Amino acid sequence: MTQEKGFHVAVVGATGAVGQQIIQTLENRKFPISQLTLLSSARSAGNKVEVNGTEYTVQEATPESFKGVDIALFSAGGGVSKALAPAAVEHGAIVVDNTSAFRMDENTPLVVPEVNEDDLLKHNGIIANPNCSTIQMVVALEPIRKKYGLDKVLVSTYQAVSGSGAVAIEELTEQTKAIINNEPFEPAVLPVRSDKKHYQIAFNAIPQIDVFTENGFTYEEMKMINETKKIMHEPELSVAATCVRIPVAVGHAESVYIEIGTEGVTAADLKELLKDAPGVVLQDDPANQVYPMPADCVGSNDVFVGRIRKDLDVEKGFHLWIVSDNLLKGAAWNSVQIAESLIKLGLVK
Amino acid sequence: MTQEKGFHVAVVGATGAVGQQIIQTLENRKFPISQLTLLSSARSAGNKVEVNGTEYTVQEATPESFKGVDIALFSAGGGVSKALAPAAVEHGAIVVDNTSAFRMDENTPLVVPEVNEDDLLKHNGIIANPNCSTIQMVVALEPIRKKYGLDKVLVSTYQAVSGSGAVAIEELTEQTKAIINNEPFEPAVLPVRSDKKHYQIAFNAIPQIDVFTENGFTYEEMKMINETKKIMHEPELSVAATCVRIPVAVGHAESVYIEIGTEGVTAADLKELLKDAPGVVLQDDPANQVYPMPADCVGSNDVFVGRIRKDLDVEKGFHLWIVSDNLLKGAAWNSVQIAESLIKLGLVK
Repeated sequence: MTQEKGFHVAVVGATGAVGQQIIQTLENRKFPISQLTLLSSARSAGNKVEVNGTEYTVQEATPESFKGVDIALFSAGGGVSKALAPAAVEHGAIVVDNTSAFRMDENTPLVVPEVNEDDLLKHNGIIANPNCSTIQMVVALEPIRKKYGLDKVLVSTYQAVSGSGAVAIEELTEQTKAIINNEPFEPAVLPVRSDKKHYQIAFNAIPQIDVFTENGFTYEEMKMINETKKIMHEPELSVAATCVRIPVAVGHAESVYIEIGTEGVTAADLKELLKDAPGVVLQDDPANQVYPMPADCVGSNDVFVGRIRKDLDVEKGFHLWIVSDNLLKGAAWNSVQIAESLIKLGLVK
Repeated sequence: MTQEKGFHVAVVGATGAVGQQIIQTLENRKFPISQLTLLSSARSAGNKVEVNGTEYTVQEATPESFKGVDIALFSAGGGVSKALAPAAVEHGAIVVDNTSAFRMDENTPLVVPEVNEDDLLKHNGIIANPNCSTIQMVVALEPIRKKYGLDKVLVSTYQAVSGSGAVAIEELTEQTKAIINNEPFEPAVLPVRSDKKHYQIAFNAIPQIDVFTENGFTYEEMKMINETKKIMHEPELSVAATCVRIPVAVGHAESVYIEIGTEGVTAADLKELLKDAPGVVLQDDPANQVYPMPADCVGSNDVFVGRIRKDLDVEKGFHLWIVSDNLLKGAAWNSVQIAESLIKLGLVK
């Protein structure tokens, strides 16, 4: 990374759950910042945020906010990205967008640096950050795909509520207290704040993340299906997903079944491969009860993989258990990592 | 059912989480009881339990306890069943065993009445009640297997802690309180009380239920695989399972992918079939956010099925979400239901 030069970085959605993690990640990575602009909706404008010991006042995001900005990290919802990302690009900024607004746009690269960093070279001003549950899965599966081929992916997720924002963490906490104290409560956020009905998440599992599409899959499930194919450049890959919210604050887990393209591969081969894979930490020692869990992954940028075993019936079939901090590798860290890749590849200014 | 005649019923493990549910279920079903004997380990003997308004003193289970008993419902762990079930049979009782002790014994029927009630006719004194996570799955899949054939089953479970007994519910509750109050805690029960390490279950997901086998699958996963084949009389069926404990007290959920034996079947066909299937309640209306959830199933004997959708790539592939009260259909109710079937078929005395 060019440490000599600094960049003017804007964070859009600076007061949100992911925005806060982006700011924290920029600090932790000592990201080369010459100027920092923190932006939000009108409602949150005026808030104070301390970054690297300096207090910043959050400003309302408008098209004019992006004058002179080199890199704009968007995480304020798809509507804000659609409205303002093109303006940011017109002002000369490169946008890293952590919403679903441009992910499936064919002119927008959808990037997980461990998988398809080169797609950044084809950018048209906006780079999309994939859905959290997709990112951790493709980081774990890409080394397998590259070496052995990949024909089929079936995933069932165990997703943390923080994917629905800080307000969902608050709901989980308050609801849990109410149930333990035998007090009444009224679900209002999960499964989807804007949807018609809301359900208890504490001590429950809700098989709905995002709203339903016509085919009976939810948008979250279709994101995993479509984004995986796009990131891996495998349009013919068979992918299916069932996405479930569970009462965990931070950390997504995934039970994944795959069929690879090569016969004669063992679980030991996959473990050996993933042991040294970029962004992956192998935690797989059943004899000593070593496997990844959401509670252990919080605060780490890595993707943790364990429970790797060969299917008992299908020669090319394998099972894996994949866990990662959905706010970091699933969102903030992958966005900042894209920005670092852009600088490394000489694509910023 | 022969309401005129009453039977001498023994409950072994009467003070445990499942034993309590068995007693409750016998009451609710107005089971024809002429005499009731409540048995337990020496440690719990002497406890008082009220049944149908009468107070019973729990006695220590010994081989002699079964003199004159017609039906003995065992739910006190595999060791107790292995030690005492043969003695009960010698004394003339029929044993319904809710442990894994005899499930895979080829001379012991493994029965879910909606699926293979006729297997009771071949009994040799002991009938095994399957594992909780297996029961609810085969109730939902059997109508599909019968009509369309079944080639493949892949399941990822979301299992409640009550599968590990009342002590695990207590651990979940106390740990949740500690985390909310920011107090220290020491896991001691989950994932497996007798295993080397114990992990946080509150706000977490643990991909281990029961201990690990040599092939990297846990015993719980192997139970689902082997029991499903045995109950369905489908030794060649391809079955795989990943079993995960989540912070729910009661109610198991399962994300299930199947491949059936017939082409041209639609999700609507499966919904139509399951709408009237024995023991099944269809809850499948995505437009109105209707799907099963653990918190809604507690206290019901039924198996709830929803999120039925056709795979987007595999013509014979379908996805389902299956939820049931693991203490009732998964344990107590299936045991009592077996006892009712035995009476109906004239197999008791």
